[in-house]
Amino acid sequence: VTSSPQPLIVLVRPQLGQNIGKAARAMLNFGLTEMRLVAPRDGWPNPEAGPAASGADIVLEKAKVFATTKEAIADCSTVFASTVRRRDLVMPVVDPEQAAEQIAGSLQRAAILFGPERSGLETEEVALANAILTVPINPEFASLNLAQAVILVAYEWSKRGQLAQPTSKELEPFAPHGEMDALIRHLDEQLAVKGYFHPPSRTQATKNTIRTIFTKTGWSSREVKAVRGMIRALVNPPRNRTKT
Amino acid sequence: VTSSPQPLIVLVRPQLGQNIGKAARAMLNFGLTEMRLVAPRDGWPNPEAGPAASGADIVLEKAKVFATTKEAIADCSTVFASTVRRRDLVMPVVDPEQAAEQIAGSLQRAAILFGPERSGLETEEVALANAILTVPINPEFASLNLAQAVILVAYEWSKRGQLAQPTSKELEPFAPHGEMDALIRHLDEQLAVKGYFHPPSRTQATKNTIRTIFTKTGWSSREVKAVRGMIRALVNPPRNRTKT
Repeated sequence: VTSSPQPLIVLVRPQLGQNIGKAARAMLNFGLTEMRLVAPRDGWPNPEAGPAASGADIVLEKAKVFATTKEAIADCSTVFASTVRRRDLVMPVVDPEQAAEQIAGSLQRAAILFGPERSGLETEEVALANAILTVPINPEFASLNLAQAVILVAYEWSKRGQLAQPTSKELEPFAPHGEMDALIRHLDEQLAVKGYFHPPSRTQATKNTIRTIFTKTGWSSREVKAVRGMIRALVNPPRNRTKT
Repeated sequence: VTSSPQPLIVLVRPQLGQNIGKAARAMLNFGLTEMRLVAPRDGWPNPEAGPAASGADIVLEKAKVFATTKEAIADCSTVFASTVRRRDLVMPVVDPEQAAEQIAGSLQRAAILFGPERSGLETEEVALANAILTVPINPEFASLNLAQAVILVAYEWSKRGQLAQPTSKELEPFAPHGEMDALIRHLDEQLAVKGYFHPPSRTQATKNTIRTIFTKTGWSSREVKAVRGMIRALVNPPRNRTKT
């Protein structure tokens, strides 16, 4: 219906098959059909998912399974991490309406990550995203289950379905997540060689910061490539151009 | 919280206690606390409602029971009848967003009727309402359960109240232009040392590209500082941390 692609719903380490089925049902009610599963606790397929999906079997049948979150979003340009708890990450925070606007206004592939039922996403997984997605909820009673979080996002997305015209604000499309990830790994490696990560107890936090800094840039594939060339140049010995 | 009173959620002849509990949970997530029950099939209180409410006991405790829908809405000025099927009634039809706007824009008491899980509201009950409330849903898969219908309405209502504020789009302010400029000059200098700019005829174009790439990042002062630290680390010889 729209020319912008529908967002992927990515369930990260979902615990109960029943909840996967309920999420599929919530999705299909609002026209979302593409689910990805990262390391579902009880394997896949899960016999408890089907009955809970109440007929949304097509979503379950098409669901793709990945070993890691990174792999599940490698082809996505915009990633939202759904969270309830506050995080010590400096990232944009959007509500379902704002997320839906961004998704519907883009021709790029978007993904929304939902964490395991009990614990939610790990901080490292949140750091993979371009923005945190939070449902503004009663602070005295925040008890949204997985399918409810999914349905609110799907509902907001579907509201924009007919209207939204992808704008061409983006001159060049964002690089797919996999390319940005390769850049960040490249940088991490080179920084590690130089002894940048110190003390060891701070290494993971520093790496999260680096990820956030570069994920937010909105660089295109061409720009990612250029920055990787700069990193190579910076770490290499000077080239004596006069000889060439 | 808002100056307009919160809407009543009226469950008409609900069948399963579990679904009443789930509806209560959905309500309280978005700050709705006033539930009315019309002739619940299994009487009231219902021992299955509590566990399904996941802690939203206050809603169940305060719930009022009525024999008929008419009595349940006697003190309400605006009544919405939630339906999925089309009706042969000439009435205004609103979606959750429009209903929430009307409710939030009025100082009058509003009620939203939800019918029994299987059959929905009787036509006579729909006729009691001022408007039909329908969630725009996938016509090929309309499978919204009671709690899901309630949560969408509660969510839209809360968006217009106090809960609607907590997202912080404003993160850290962007770094002043002078700091970003210093970063770009720093990078240019270090790249020049490494012989990155070649051939000379392309140097200005390449520098323009670098400026565009970094100007678009939206980095804060803190992030600019971090990136400058990375550039220093990349060009320096490895530090042997074990000695420090």
